[in-house]
Amino acid sequence: MNIEIVTTGSELMLGRVLNSHQQWICRQLADAGYTVQRQVAVPDTATAIQQTVAEALRRADWVITTGGLGPTSDDLTRELIAQLLGRSLREDPQILAALVDFFARRNRPMPPRTALQALVPEGAVVLPNAHGTAPGLLLALKPNPYREEARPAWLVMLPGPPRELRPMFLTQVLPRIKEWCPLPVPCGCRTLRTVGIGESQVEQLIGEPLRVFTDRGLELGYCARPGEVDVRLVARGTDADRMIEEAEQCVRRLVGEHIFGEDDVELEQVVVALLTARKQTLAVAESCTGGLIAHRITNIPGASAVFLGGVIPYANAAKQALLGVRPETLDRDGAVSEATAREMAIGVRTRLNADYGLAITGIAGPGGGTLEKPVGTVFIALASSVDNVVLRPKNPFDRATFKQVTAQQALELMRRTLLTTNPQAMGPAGLSRL
Amino acid sequence: MNIEIVTTGSELMLGRVLNSHQQWICRQLADAGYTVQRQVAVPDTATAIQQTVAEALRRADWVITTGGLGPTSDDLTRELIAQLLGRSLREDPQILAALVDFFARRNRPMPPRTALQALVPEGAVVLPNAHGTAPGLLLALKPNPYREEARPAWLVMLPGPPRELRPMFLTQVLPRIKEWCPLPVPCGCRTLRTVGIGESQVEQLIGEPLRVFTDRGLELGYCARPGEVDVRLVARGTDADRMIEEAEQCVRRLVGEHIFGEDDVELEQVVVALLTARKQTLAVAESCTGGLIAHRITNIPGASAVFLGGVIPYANAAKQALLGVRPETLDRDGAVSEATAREMAIGVRTRLNADYGLAITGIAGPGGGTLEKPVGTVFIALASSVDNVVLRPKNPFDRATFKQVTAQQALELMRRTLLTTNPQAMGPAGLSRL
Repeated sequence: MNIEIVTTGSELMLGRVLNSHQQWICRQLADAGYTVQRQVAVPDTATAIQQTVAEALRRADWVITTGGLGPTSDDLTRELIAQLLGRSLREDPQILAALVDFFARRNRPMPPRTALQALVPEGAVVLPNAHGTAPGLLLALKPNPYREEARPAWLVMLPGPPRELRPMFLTQVLPRIKEWCPLPVPCGCRTLRTVGIGESQVEQLIGEPLRVFTDRGLELGYCARPGEVDVRLVARGTDADRMIEEAEQCVRRLVGEHIFGEDDVELEQVVVALLTARKQTLAVAESCTGGLIAHRITNIPGASAVFLGGVIPYANAAKQALLGVRPETLDRDGAVSEATAREMAIGVRTRLNADYGLAITGIAGPGGGTLEKPVGTVFIALASSVDNVVLRPKNPFDRATFKQVTAQQALELMRRTLLTTNPQAMGPAGLSRL
Repeated sequence: MNIEIVTTGSELMLGRVLNSHQQWICRQLADAGYTVQRQVAVPDTATAIQQTVAEALRRADWVITTGGLGPTSDDLTRELIAQLLGRSLREDPQILAALVDFFARRNRPMPPRTALQALVPEGAVVLPNAHGTAPGLLLALKPNPYREEARPAWLVMLPGPPRELRPMFLTQVLPRIKEWCPLPVPCGCRTLRTVGIGESQVEQLIGEPLRVFTDRGLELGYCARPGEVDVRLVARGTDADRMIEEAEQCVRRLVGEHIFGEDDVELEQVVVALLTARKQTLAVAESCTGGLIAHRITNIPGASAVFLGGVIPYANAAKQALLGVRPETLDRDGAVSEATAREMAIGVRTRLNADYGLAITGIAGPGGGTLEKPVGTVFIALASSVDNVVLRPKNPFDRATFKQVTAQQALELMRRTLLTTNPQAMGPAGLSRL
C-alpha cells in the first residue's frame, strides 16, 4: 500500500508559507497504521502539477493532492487533473445550489468565478465541504492507467485551507482508505521522548540491546531537537503491539530516567501535570532564558492552577529590586554565579509563596562572555522547603539554541525533583498563601 | 536554473515532525532571486533516497538534500549518494580531528559511530559545520550523468538540525549558487512587513493603486500570520530595482504607518533598535502573554542594554506582591481590567525604574471567560513619565494565536509610541537609576 501526497502552491516555493498539510495528513495516516511514501510540493503551474500527479500515479495506490480547488486564477488542480486523465468536467447542480446558499446566508454577493467550484470530473465522487465553498473530489482509477499491472488507484483532491481539509480528510477520506485498502498486517508506532541525553548516547545505550527486536523487523528511529531526542518504535505484523510493548520496556530499562513522555507530550505539559497532581505550585526567575520557560508553561491550558508567576530580572538592579538578591553576592560572585542563582530561586519562591522556585542565570551570548565565564555558562537553581539545588551545565550554542536547551534543562530538573520528592515531606508552601 | 530540495526522514512520513527546512531554504533562495521548482520528502530508506536524488538530477541544476548525515544508524544519505554516483568514501583527517576536539571540549567521550561523519565521497567539497558534528558535502557533477545534454549539476548535502543547516547554507552554499549560476536577468524582491491591519484590508488599499506596476510585470503577494501581514514585491528585468523602489514608495504612501520593517526584520528587533537609539529602557508585566514578549525581546542580541526585565504576575497575588496592584482594584474591577492593566504598567515601570512600563492582562482561554469578559478580552497598558495609555483589543482566538496576536499588539503600541514621542520631552527615567 503506497500513499503519496502532492501539495500545490507557488507561495510554498517562495518560502513564504509553511506547509503543514503534509505533516498533518501523514500523522493521521500513521496513527491508522498507513505510511506515506513520498511528499511532493510543486508550484501552481500546469506542467508541474500534471507531471507530478502522473509520476505519483506510477507508484502509488492513493494520491492525495491539496490546494488549487478555490475560485481564484491560480486554482488549477481540478481542471488540470481532469485533463490529465481525459475526463470531462460537468457542473454539479447540488454543489452550485450549496454555493448560492453559502453566499446568501452570509448576505454577500456571489463572486463570478465561484461557480467554477461546482465543476466535477466525470465519474468523481464529490466530498462535501462543511467549512468552505470548494468541495473535495475523489476519483477511482480502475485500473490505474499509469501502472502496467492492472491494479486500481484512487486520487483525492482536497481544498487548501486547513479548517476545510482536516474534517474532510477525517470524515470522508480516511474511512474510505480503511475500507477499500485494509492493512494487510496490523501496525503499531510509539515515540518515547527523552531529555538530558544526546542522540548518539541514546543509540549507544539501546541500539545493541534492541537488536533482538530490530532483527525481527522492528523499525528504530531517532530524532534530535535542542535538548531532546525522540526514540521511535514501529512494528508491523500480528504481534506488532506486543513487540512494541517489549521494545518499549527494554528502552525504559536502559534510559527510562530520561524518558519524560510519549508521542506528542511536551516537557512543560509533564511538569504542569505533575504539579497539578501533587497540588504544588511553581514560580520562576529567568534571567538568560528571558521568559521562555514561563511562555512554555503558560502555553498549557490550566497552567494557572500551579504556575504562580515569574520574574525576568534581566538587569542586575532588577535581581535586587524584584528578588532580593544581595548586592554583596552580585559584587563578589557576579550575576552569573551559583550564589546568585540560589538567591534568585529562594527569592522568587518566597516572594510568590510557591512550593518551588526555579531560577536561571547565564550568558546567552553572542557578547558578554569572559575567559572564566565563557558564553554558554549557566546556573540553574531549584529551591523548595527541603532543598536548594544548583546545576551548572555548559551550553555553548547560538543564542536561540542556548535558550531552548537551557529551558529544557531547567524543566527537566523540575520534573526529576517532582518525581523523586515526597510532597508530604515538604509541608506547606511557606508562610501563608499570598 | 532549476533547484530541487530533497528532505529525508522517516519521522516526516509519520507526521511526527514539521518539515521547516523546505520553507526556510526556499525563502533564502527566493530573496536572492532563485525559485525552487520542487520539494520532495522521502523516508530514510535506500531505495527512496537514491531514486529521489536520481530523479531530481534528471531535472535540476542544483539538488539540495537535508538530513541523514549524523552518526546514528538511520543516517544514510552520505553513503547512499556516494554509492549512487559511484564515488568511494574516504576518512578526512581534518574532520576527524574536529570531531575529537568537539567532544574533548565538552568533556564527553566520543561515541564510536561518530567517526562515520568524517567520511567524504571522492571529489566532494567539505562544508565545515560551525554548530555541530556532521559537516555538509558538496559534489560537482561535470557533467551530470543523469542528463542527456552535457551540463553540470551540483549536489549539496546539508545536516538536518536547523541551527547547523542554516548558517551552513547562508555562508557556504548560497554564495556558491550566486557565483556559479548567476541569474540571467536581474531580479529584485522586497517584503514589507505590516502590523495592525488585516490581509484583505491591505489588499483593498494597495491592490488597485499598484495596478500600474503589476501591469508592467511586478508580482505582488501577500502572506498573513498571526498579527502581521507581509506584502511581497518581486520584479525581474533590467529595471527590477527601480520598479520595486517605486512600488515600495506607493505602498508606503498608502499603508506606511503599518509597516514596521522589511524582509526578515522582526517587530521586537525594531523596538529594541528604537529604544537603543533613544537610550531609553523598557520593563514589561505580562499576565496572559505569559513571558512571550520578554522571550521575543531577549532573543535579540544586545537587548540587555534597553530591556531591564519583566514580571509575569500570573496569579492575582503576584500582581500585588510583585507590582503593587491594589487589592481594591482587583476586587472592584477584576484582574482583567483597564485599571489593573494601568497599575501593572505603572508598577513595573516604577519598580524597575524604566522609561516605559508595558503591561498586558487578558483571558487567553480556553477557560476563564465570562459573559461580560469573554475569552479574547485583553487590556494593554503603556506607562511613561508623560502618559499612561490603555488599549482594549479583542482577540477571540485559540490560546497560542491569542498570545501571538496580543504580543504583536503590545510591541506595536511600544513602537508607535517610540516613533511619536520626543525623548527630550520625557526627562530622566524617574527617581534615580536603580
